[in-house]
Amino acid sequence: MTHDPYRYRLRLAYDGTAYAGWQVQPARRTIQGELEKALHQLARQPVRVQCSGRTDAGVHAASQVAHFDLARPAAPAKLLLGLNALLDDDIRVFSVRRTRPAFHARFSATGKEYRYFIWNDAVLPPSVRAGRWLVRQPLDVAAMRQAAAALVGRRDFAAFTANPNREVHGTVRHLRDLRVTRRGREIVICARGDGFLYKMVRSLAGFLVRVGTGELPPAAARILLAARQRTAVVPTAPPQGLFLWRVFY
Amino acid sequence: MTHDPYRYRLRLAYDGTAYAGWQVQPARRTIQGELEKALHQLARQPVRVQCSGRTDAGVHAASQVAHFDLARPAAPAKLLLGLNALLDDDIRVFSVRRTRPAFHARFSATGKEYRYFIWNDAVLPPSVRAGRWLVRQPLDVAAMRQAAAALVGRRDFAAFTANPNREVHGTVRHLRDLRVTRRGREIVICARGDGFLYKMVRSLAGFLVRVGTGELPPAAARILLAARQRTAVVPTAPPQGLFLWRVFY
Repeated sequence: MTHDPYRYRLRLAYDGTAYAGWQVQPARRTIQGELEKALHQLARQPVRVQCSGRTDAGVHAASQVAHFDLARPAAPAKLLLGLNALLDDDIRVFSVRRTRPAFHARFSATGKEYRYFIWNDAVLPPSVRAGRWLVRQPLDVAAMRQAAAALVGRRDFAAFTANPNREVHGTVRHLRDLRVTRRGREIVICARGDGFLYKMVRSLAGFLVRVGTGELPPAAARILLAARQRTAVVPTAPPQGLFLWRVFY
Repeated sequence: MTHDPYRYRLRLAYDGTAYAGWQVQPARRTIQGELEKALHQLARQPVRVQCSGRTDAGVHAASQVAHFDLARPAAPAKLLLGLNALLDDDIRVFSVRRTRPAFHARFSATGKEYRYFIWNDAVLPPSVRAGRWLVRQPLDVAAMRQAAAALVGRRDFAAFTANPNREVHGTVRHLRDLRVTRRGREIVICARGDGFLYKMVRSLAGFLVRVGTGELPPAAARILLAARQRTAVVPTAPPQGLFLWRVFY
């Protein structure tokens, strides 16, 4: 008789600046690699950690969700303390709890929210430098909002992914919400959807900034959606402004 | 005939994490040292930079003001670009402008505002880790406010400085405002005054946190002011939560 695995769910945040992204890579510091190393040490067994969706090099998470299995059970409170003691302070675990074996951080997720942070001024203040894209040209937020509204819905986002051909499940996604807000010199692009293509949020951010500077009209959104092809018209915004903000289950 | 010096005023911000404070020290990275090195290179002459008030190791500035003199004039816009090109991104200069020779960053200042940032939760999010003091015990902000109100005014702050004997101008200062606000898990202590003693804001923050945890009653504020002696009752809060926020002229 085999028993169900002891499955644990964890919620964590990270500053991606010093990491080559989520996924384990030989000879590179990655979030997954650091977590697995720490869990190996705590649980005295090799542990594989699965997250809701891999983040790229330099991308941050305000709230990422992951799961892992242990052959022998361990107290969640001890795992939480142990992880935060072993990990550097640019990765922090908020919670560890036992979960049902059917829970899967990636496949059980029903949606995600990403936020892209822009600092719209001549100079980037040191206190926010790790998590902002500095855009010096004045941005027209009203124009950005108009373009964003045209992108919301169940649509083919082939023009807003780095590589449409690599998408196994096609390029149609349901973008439930795309909001642009300004607070002083900070502009935040908030994207919610049931799923996102490779580099889709950074492509949306890159496009919206181009609308904000006046290089593209808001109407370009509909044209690009209809073209269903990635072109140089849509730049990919740099990773440091992007945060995985929340995962929905 | 000697001409007036070419005096320049600059406004800058820094993340103090990697620095041994403002003041030049042999074989240590300091804010003043980095600025003087960059200005020497740009102006091809040794330059001495004076700030509104030296910050300690690990303390940040959202807005510090400084001045320096040049023997030969230079275009402020070029100095601004040159400084930001030569300095690391944890020091940023917002503005450089020519000023009257009588202007002195320290002696012309009429007041200052400091802000001390506390993160009141179990875990410190990576995105704010450089500029927050993590306090895990729940803090009673109402009690902190009550204690803060008793400290406002022209008073002898000998109990709230690291070393009362080192103060050449005595230990009486006018604390114009001391506010405690909470926004979610963040608590901000905002202090405005005409001048501050050595480590005074960190002492006030350390004391207020002790009131917030319930270790000390708000009434301890008046008792300590009257005692006019620094004791172990007042801890010094760590440097990473402190920002020089604004200098008034």
